[in-house]
Amino acid sequence: MAKHLTTRKQDYSKWYNELVVKADLAQNSGVRGSMVIKPYGYAIWEKLQQELDRRFKETGHENAYFPLFIPKSYFNKEASHVEGFAKECAVVTHYRLKNDPVSKDIIVDPDAKLEEELIVRPTSETIIWDTYRDWIQSYRDLPILVNQWANVVRWEMRTRLFLRTSEFLWQEGHTAHATEQEAIEEAEQMMNVYADFAEKFMAIPVIKGVKSVNERFAGAIETYCIEALMQDGKALQAGTSHFLGQNFAKAFDVKFQDQDGKVKHVWATSWGVSTRLMGALVMTHSDDNGLVLPPNLAPIQVVIVPIYKGMEELERVSVVANEIVAELRALGISVKFDNRDTYKPGWKFNEYELKGVPIRIAIGPRDLEKGVVEVARRDTLEKESLATQGLGGKIKNLLTQMQQNLYQKALDFREENTHRADSWEEFVDIIENKAGFVYAHWDGTPETEEEIKTKTKATIRCIPLDAKKEIGKCILTGKPSERRVVFARAY
Amino acid sequence: MAKHLTTRKQDYSKWYNELVVKADLAQNSGVRGSMVIKPYGYAIWEKLQQELDRRFKETGHENAYFPLFIPKSYFNKEASHVEGFAKECAVVTHYRLKNDPVSKDIIVDPDAKLEEELIVRPTSETIIWDTYRDWIQSYRDLPILVNQWANVVRWEMRTRLFLRTSEFLWQEGHTAHATEQEAIEEAEQMMNVYADFAEKFMAIPVIKGVKSVNERFAGAIETYCIEALMQDGKALQAGTSHFLGQNFAKAFDVKFQDQDGKVKHVWATSWGVSTRLMGALVMTHSDDNGLVLPPNLAPIQVVIVPIYKGMEELERVSVVANEIVAELRALGISVKFDNRDTYKPGWKFNEYELKGVPIRIAIGPRDLEKGVVEVARRDTLEKESLATQGLGGKIKNLLTQMQQNLYQKALDFREENTHRADSWEEFVDIIENKAGFVYAHWDGTPETEEEIKTKTKATIRCIPLDAKKEIGKCILTGKPSERRVVFARAY
Repeated sequence: MAKHLTTRKQDYSKWYNELVVKADLAQNSGVRGSMVIKPYGYAIWEKLQQELDRRFKETGHENAYFPLFIPKSYFNKEASHVEGFAKECAVVTHYRLKNDPVSKDIIVDPDAKLEEELIVRPTSETIIWDTYRDWIQSYRDLPILVNQWANVVRWEMRTRLFLRTSEFLWQEGHTAHATEQEAIEEAEQMMNVYADFAEKFMAIPVIKGVKSVNERFAGAIETYCIEALMQDGKALQAGTSHFLGQNFAKAFDVKFQDQDGKVKHVWATSWGVSTRLMGALVMTHSDDNGLVLPPNLAPIQVVIVPIYKGMEELERVSVVANEIVAELRALGISVKFDNRDTYKPGWKFNEYELKGVPIRIAIGPRDLEKGVVEVARRDTLEKESLATQGLGGKIKNLLTQMQQNLYQKALDFREENTHRADSWEEFVDIIENKAGFVYAHWDGTPETEEEIKTKTKATIRCIPLDAKKEIGKCILTGKPSERRVVFARAY
Repeated sequence: MAKHLTTRKQDYSKWYNELVVKADLAQNSGVRGSMVIKPYGYAIWEKLQQELDRRFKETGHENAYFPLFIPKSYFNKEASHVEGFAKECAVVTHYRLKNDPVSKDIIVDPDAKLEEELIVRPTSETIIWDTYRDWIQSYRDLPILVNQWANVVRWEMRTRLFLRTSEFLWQEGHTAHATEQEAIEEAEQMMNVYADFAEKFMAIPVIKGVKSVNERFAGAIETYCIEALMQDGKALQAGTSHFLGQNFAKAFDVKFQDQDGKVKHVWATSWGVSTRLMGALVMTHSDDNGLVLPPNLAPIQVVIVPIYKGMEELERVSVVANEIVAELRALGISVKFDNRDTYKPGWKFNEYELKGVPIRIAIGPRDLEKGVVEVARRDTLEKESLATQGLGGKIKNLLTQMQQNLYQKALDFREENTHRADSWEEFVDIIENKAGFVYAHWDGTPETEEEIKTKTKATIRCIPLDAKKEIGKCILTGKPSERRVVFARAY
């Protein structure tokens, strides 16, 4: 197991790409822009999924499944939506192949051309609102609180594993409400569900806010988001929740008879997170030795590696190891005893460090005599000798501590890399030389935002929900501003 | 809630279609051949998924995810596979749309034509074996035991909800082994996992067997299957497990260095079940009043309906209802107290009968005085009055009983509809007038099978694994045969 990762300092981007592949999370496939999510990466994704799914159901949502293909004409119905999504997409034009009588190769059968092309869903608002028209007649049919776990495709020219791939996995919630107020509350609730999940479960601190007009979802009235900061000082949008107003209800003619007897258009939200979260996870916690996983997300939380010469020693070590396995499992901790004889302990140490297993326990014959084991934690790389007696409780506490420590470490990093800029020079200096989040005044116009982006590659990540009113001047134009917004270069 | 289902006797096919829609399981979408799985149907599918996933993991499998799109050329690599799958499929030819300068509509951008067309996966052997080439070098990398939950597309001209749709959901296991023997054992193991799942969890009795050459999976050496019998006497293939030999390893050049130092091709299996199981579920247990669900699969196992006049009575009933809810939940039973004031009890009775909720508890003011509740079971439609005292334990037992009863009922039905035919006349008479499974002798040739199919629409469902050696004569040709095989008309 030669790991030899490029360090973060040498080349952050290369470090990320290597780590994702070497830690067995994902790899590029033979299909341009599409990745293979390997079993170890998928096991982490399943943990994310299960916890999110639990939180969605706890807030009253149900899962359903809608078609992969969307007729081209559906996209035409919502004007801003088509601009945002229907352009870079996979288009199905035929439904049959045949043998070429000359070359004997299989070719597309020209006789099997579809009357109307089908788009592989880039997002499902159109097909879902086309369906909701059947589901909604009366106020009694509302709210509809539905989520879908699905694959989506957005044609991307420059792709990176997890962060930007043509096909990715995600969940998309689509809700329908009788009133504007209820829909806004739903959109805000789901942003809060995402934020709490990111912080408590993934140990990733996030800023909650709303997007500027330029960065809004195509078809939304308001886009709520959570923004995280990666170790290279670039921001990553980790989840979005959209208040869609009545745009899709009007486009797809979805109305209901209200309690007052009047027929009204339905109010909508949509919200989603994707396998991009896997990228955020890697880039928030990992180090030059490999992956670092918060215990909540680790498929293997504890690995036990025996140190031995000969079968007799292995047998003696195994007795204790198996007792520890049983004790930890009884405490709900996932544990692996790696007694493979085909690899040396040093190889195994490297392997589990690279894969981010939170705790490694090493047991040798001398430890047995003393009644201790060596416990190494992945986050700080510290080792200590702990008594075998009562080990379970200590490991359990340590896992809780590590989960908190990783969050605190990420939070400290974010605080250290959050700046205030009060002039254009200061702003440019920070963006160029320090990176991180920059709180600065902005005059509120899309033109100014666009110009700042062109000049510095920094965008407005969000207008933070907790922003205090503060009179100031736009860093670019000097025009008046009432609050600071958050700028950063972003993934 | 007007249910008015067509009865099974009137028109079995119509009954099925109506039931699937009226019980809120699924509906057709605006996209030809693609269905929408509604929340209630999806909740049942989730229960199937979770239990299957648990059984896969218990037998050592891990999940992963492979690309939706497969380059056309991949299909060319395995000759029989391309014949079976690459023909009726969705073909992606372009990756961009644009505004038509004249009509202003969005049209396919002719400049964005793919160099090589992409096929939306009908099954993933090709893309997965293309990936396994990277994963496998040594015997130490084997076995690979991977499963994928995914959507697949096979272009279908005549579609039916769950039974045959262009897009469907499924799982596909793909394993790689060092020896032929190990791969055969894996394929057999997974057939057994499917059979046990169908019988114990879904209460659907199945025959285990192997397919004849005509019915084999395209690219397989042997296809194992489980076959179930529907209430109209037609068979339904509920799951298949394939021993693929070295076909895909050779097509994609996947080799390993064995312990003896020699380089060899890898041995393969694949196995899958799909949302088709939802169709099998509906058609095995349901009746003219609607869906009947085995308790294991019911999203709501018990519903409590209050019978009351005025709020004061509702309050008194609710006290007892809430106690029962708490008691049942503590026993791990999913229960819903439907206290909606917007619907009458009769409407609710119909609704839950239609949706197959296993147990309905009705509570009125008179019941309160007597300390009893009315318990109705969905499978037999029987009602009885039970003491509120100790109700939880009784309900739990009743659910277990109902699960067993549904299996026994389906097994009895199958036995009654399983026949032996010893002459062509007898065979045709049974197929035409009785339906069901027919055990008959066959000479073992594809030609005879094909002729029987043309004449009677009956196919060989399988050569049962438990078939005893029995000398006989083929019902069509009179040629010698060593065992009976199972014929039926099938979905």
